Amino acid sequence: MNFTLDRLLSFTKEILLKIGCSEKDAQTAADVLLSADLRGVDSHGVARLSGYVRLWEAGRINPIPNIKKVYETASTAVVDGDGGLGLVVAPFAMQVAIDKARVAGTGWVSVKNSNHYGIAGIHAMQALQHDMIGISLTNASPLVSPTFSAERLLGTNPIAVAIPAKNQPSFVADMATTTAANGKLEILQRKGRDAPLGWIQDKDGLPTTSVFGVKDGGALLPLGGDREHGSHKGYALGAIVDIFSAVLSGANYGPWVPPFVAFLQPDPNPVGEGLGHFFGAMRVDAFRPADEFKENMDTWITRFRASKTIQGHEKVLIPGDPERELEIERRERGIPLVQAVEEDLRALGERFGVGL
Amino acid sequence: MNFTLDRLLSFTKEILLKIGCSEKDAQTAADVLLSADLRGVDSHGVARLSGYVRLWEAGRINPIPNIKKVYETASTAVVDGDGGLGLVVAPFAMQVAIDKARVAGTGWVSVKNSNHYGIAGIHAMQALQHDMIGISLTNASPLVSPTFSAERLLGTNPIAVAIPAKNQPSFVADMATTTAANGKLEILQRKGRDAPLGWIQDKDGLPTTSVFGVKDGGALLPLGGDREHGSHKGYALGAIVDIFSAVLSGANYGPWVPPFVAFLQPDPNPVGEGLGHFFGAMRVDAFRPADEFKENMDTWITRFRASKTIQGHEKVLIPGDPERELEIERRERGIPLVQAVEEDLRALGERFGVGL
Repeated sequence: MNFTLDRLLSFTKEILLKIGCSEKDAQTAADVLLSADLRGVDSHGVARLSGYVRLWEAGRINPIPNIKKVYETASTAVVDGDGGLGLVVAPFAMQVAIDKARVAGTGWVSVKNSNHYGIAGIHAMQALQHDMIGISLTNASPLVSPTFSAERLLGTNPIAVAIPAKNQPSFVADMATTTAANGKLEILQRKGRDAPLGWIQDKDGLPTTSVFGVKDGGALLPLGGDREHGSHKGYALGAIVDIFSAVLSGANYGPWVPPFVAFLQPDPNPVGEGLGHFFGAMRVDAFRPADEFKENMDTWITRFRASKTIQGHEKVLIPGDPERELEIERRERGIPLVQAVEEDLRALGERFGVGL
Repeated sequence: MNFTLDRLLSFTKEILLKIGCSEKDAQTAADVLLSADLRGVDSHGVARLSGYVRLWEAGRINPIPNIKKVYETASTAVVDGDGGLGLVVAPFAMQVAIDKARVAGTGWVSVKNSNHYGIAGIHAMQALQHDMIGISLTNASPLVSPTFSAERLLGTNPIAVAIPAKNQPSFVADMATTTAANGKLEILQRKGRDAPLGWIQDKDGLPTTSVFGVKDGGALLPLGGDREHGSHKGYALGAIVDIFSAVLSGANYGPWVPPFVAFLQPDPNPVGEGLGHFFGAMRVDAFRPADEFKENMDTWITRFRASKTIQGHEKVLIPGDPERELEIERRERGIPLVQAVEEDLRALGERFGVGL
């Protein structure tokens, strides 16, 4: 069944008000959460709302955080999220990066004491309206094994980069540093299908096609899949995201990152506070006149989109194309929710006296 | 046969003096070039010296460049390499980034009008001695096809990130954004072996195991190998490197990047000047006290290195481990050159009256 954006937005906002968020924070968080559904990243949208509520119940989310800068230079800052929703902490921190970039050319903000921040891309995109390049990284619950490791030491640690163009739509890359994101696995689980080799290893570190391999003690694999196909590069990228997000800020890193699911406890001996993010904003006119830059981005995009394709493929995509096209469609026709998510939201609504 | 570092350094420097480089530039370029041989990236070391000389003969390298900043803000700059050796332009630009970071917390430099800069990692490592994180990106001759494309539109566009630790060795990632770098292919070519599927596509964009697939009009594949294993992510990473290196600076991007080999002509209608690089330097104490940061890096590194391994694998590596171990070995035992490279260098030496 399809739901309109407005309906899901107001439902989400009402629930967040019920757990004690301010009007402004509830609005911000609902906007960020629903941007995932709009862009087709269903695993990171309203499907997660009850997960955030369970974390709040477990005392692991502060609904009225005092989010603030705790350290800064002309082009950098560390932000303390005070245990708030990452959905609220991230837009605050990205705004700090943008404000720094206005004055110093670029701004770089590492964040501690936060929680899951939704999709990485939407925070990077916050920079676009200011003619800035936006960068958004976050660490996450450990589900990924480094090359040659049989342990889960990294999250799916995404990298998002948003770059403005002139007449062409913006370039927006938003990718987990694994072969496949967790959301793709959930889709296969629902369909009862196997996963391709190269996505998952089992609890002993051996290749598996079982879509329940991660639940059974295995792990997602870094981008590349195996050593011969460059998994050490995916591992290094995930590690860089972890270090920028958490070692720079003083958040938990590696296996110490608190789990998103409320039924798993955070490590009793943390190495930092909460989980971490990293944001960057670069004014394009800190390098060359903005119009020159954006005209060249148009040339870049146009040339790549006009590329000769491999037979059987209609076109070469620019990062961000599929999500933008889905957003247009879903704003018009509504957002489809799978039955399990709809039931979960109805149960949540009943509990708090909020109609879906 | 093994050659001592000093012998290859002085040979390289003499050749560069013969083509008109200054004493200082010849020393810098020789140091950068040989750092590749020391670290085991043989494809980017002295094996390329005669290639640089051929570019100079073709009038495509300026031996006495006037390298300078042409645009700047507190935390950014654009550097014009004046057609010089990338081996000389890159250390200059990285120093600008470091100087900016001293004052503004971070420094970000995009470079135009440059040439091939050797291994990416060595420039990122320039930041380490200042307790800074170093970042080094470059675009390169088009050899890589975007996902679904049958054309070569990107270079192997590497990403290097160097991060200081306290008692542990630094974290140094240095990776092409392809499944396999060109150098790995050359090794297989010499051995007469096939390449694994996922490295190369043929001229029609179909998977091939032929190690001559790229020479025969095919292309290297972005990290991930195919769409199902995330090649759109490798493509996006290569694209980001291209845009940061060249669209920000005003260099050539995508298919317009001038070829490294002198027998291929640059596009007669360039979209910019030369090829481009991008450098970043971040003071770790622009985020938290340097000692705190470096102690946490030690914890990060120690924990990952102590990871339980998959049976048959001795240890989990930290990015930079293999190169550092090779450097120790090669400083002691010398640098092995394959016969073809040795002969090529001897011929070069004879021509310029320089003994190897």
